[in-house]
Amino acid sequence: MIRQLTIIGVGLIGGSLARALKQVGHVGEVVGCSRNQAHLQDAQKLGVIDRFTTDIGAAVQGADVVLLAVPLGAMEDCFRAMVGHLGPDTVVTDAGSAKASVVAAAQTAFGTLPAGFVPGHPIAGTEQSGVQASFAELYRNRRVILTPLASSSPAALEAVRNMWQATGAFVDEMGVEHHDEVLAATSHLPHLLAYGLVDTLVSMDESEEIFRFAAGGFRDFTRIAASDAVVWRDICLANQTALLAVLERYRADLEKLTELVRRGDGEALAALFTRAKAARGRFVDQLEK
Amino acid sequence: MIRQLTIIGVGLIGGSLARALKQVGHVGEVVGCSRNQAHLQDAQKLGVIDRFTTDIGAAVQGADVVLLAVPLGAMEDCFRAMVGHLGPDTVVTDAGSAKASVVAAAQTAFGTLPAGFVPGHPIAGTEQSGVQASFAELYRNRRVILTPLASSSPAALEAVRNMWQATGAFVDEMGVEHHDEVLAATSHLPHLLAYGLVDTLVSMDESEEIFRFAAGGFRDFTRIAASDAVVWRDICLANQTALLAVLERYRADLEKLTELVRRGDGEALAALFTRAKAARGRFVDQLEK
Repeated sequence: MIRQLTIIGVGLIGGSLARALKQVGHVGEVVGCSRNQAHLQDAQKLGVIDRFTTDIGAAVQGADVVLLAVPLGAMEDCFRAMVGHLGPDTVVTDAGSAKASVVAAAQTAFGTLPAGFVPGHPIAGTEQSGVQASFAELYRNRRVILTPLASSSPAALEAVRNMWQATGAFVDEMGVEHHDEVLAATSHLPHLLAYGLVDTLVSMDESEEIFRFAAGGFRDFTRIAASDAVVWRDICLANQTALLAVLERYRADLEKLTELVRRGDGEALAALFTRAKAARGRFVDQLEK
Repeated sequence: MIRQLTIIGVGLIGGSLARALKQVGHVGEVVGCSRNQAHLQDAQKLGVIDRFTTDIGAAVQGADVVLLAVPLGAMEDCFRAMVGHLGPDTVVTDAGSAKASVVAAAQTAFGTLPAGFVPGHPIAGTEQSGVQASFAELYRNRRVILTPLASSSPAALEAVRNMWQATGAFVDEMGVEHHDEVLAATSHLPHLLAYGLVDTLVSMDESEEIFRFAAGGFRDFTRIAASDAVVWRDICLANQTALLAVLERYRADLEKLTELVRRGDGEALAALFTRAKAARGRFVDQLEK
């Protein structure tokens, strides 16, 4: 049970956490904080937060747990604004899609990593953003990855773990660097490819017709290209190293695949498609377990 | 109204057409034909077809309309097996995802293009295949592209148009080559990218974890990689020229995008993501009209 939860950045991610915890009674008061007062008023009207302030120092005052759910590029400034305002036992966690950059931001802002700091990443979301899109079930049966640091206290880790479990999520732990490599492959690369595909098609002479005759598969394929541009800009910058590595790998594979099409090597194409279809099938089976 | 419709290849596409036409009373008898007797028995049990034969010559006997819904690589053999068995007014159409190769196959098999032949392509489908996955609503509010030839008779074109309209689809017409270029961009390229992505991830050391932590966006993104491997092998071979052109273009754009990530050019990345998100938004709005 969290007496006071402070959420910095009350959008889809922060808002859904607040709703989920309120639904199961795992939180007393939810304090919202953001640069945009109108968004905070919306969040309060929706019952997602109980009160709000645009001042981070005031928002974290008295909090048991603070969640940062802002774009990665905004993390350092947010940490800096907390300095001197956190209680001795305040737990601080975040929902950033890359973890090394958040740890570096905390290190820079605080000078040393606080014992209460436990980086986290809920693997959930939709292409929607904003508190209006938030809902209590977002995390149910989804995975949340925590990347506790050598500096993280066991009590802080337990509090963050309990919080996410209360939303119905499964909580895993892994190292910061490993997290960033896995997410580069499974999330950051696909987003980049989808944005790139839409952009390529838009620039073509027949773009209007291309979009008119696009089928359902295309709509699914490009859904992630409707995600928030600033969030994804920040992810590309924050997870640059791991993203570049997997991007180079994909491009090399795509070159080989292009060569198969060029050679008209039906046998190799069918083998690749069969292998990919089978792998995806196994993955979907796993997801549905 | 079609008295006898013969469907060669009774799977998702052919089966859904039969169901839709039966539902609105636009067809009398549906004759199924395929190499696989067990599939035909299933189709008959499901009420999708009224009778069947594995012999194409016998199947097209007495047909008003013949639909070929087989992989592109099987078209020529199917056309060849019809020679001498079509009535003078029999209309022949197909559901192939590329059109130039089907026209070439008909030309080769028949020696000359029959007046009753009108190539077509319903822009609908799911990643499922087989008659069990077929349903009457598959074509409702979807687009069907017809690519009538100089040799196609107006009566044949009208019959094919009426048939698809009876399923609730919108029917458009365009030239064969133009169809193949548009579809290469909007359908064939995304499929290739999705298959390629899954294959890249499978080959990575962390592949098991990658799939375990994949989020919903990844599932949507790779849905089309669960499509039938033989169908997609044939599409790559049949639409090689147009597919290579758009693939080269995408690869060049992806190289530029990689360079933006490498340089850490946040402004250019945000601009690209914003542009792509807006374009996709316009497209989805269009689809929902």
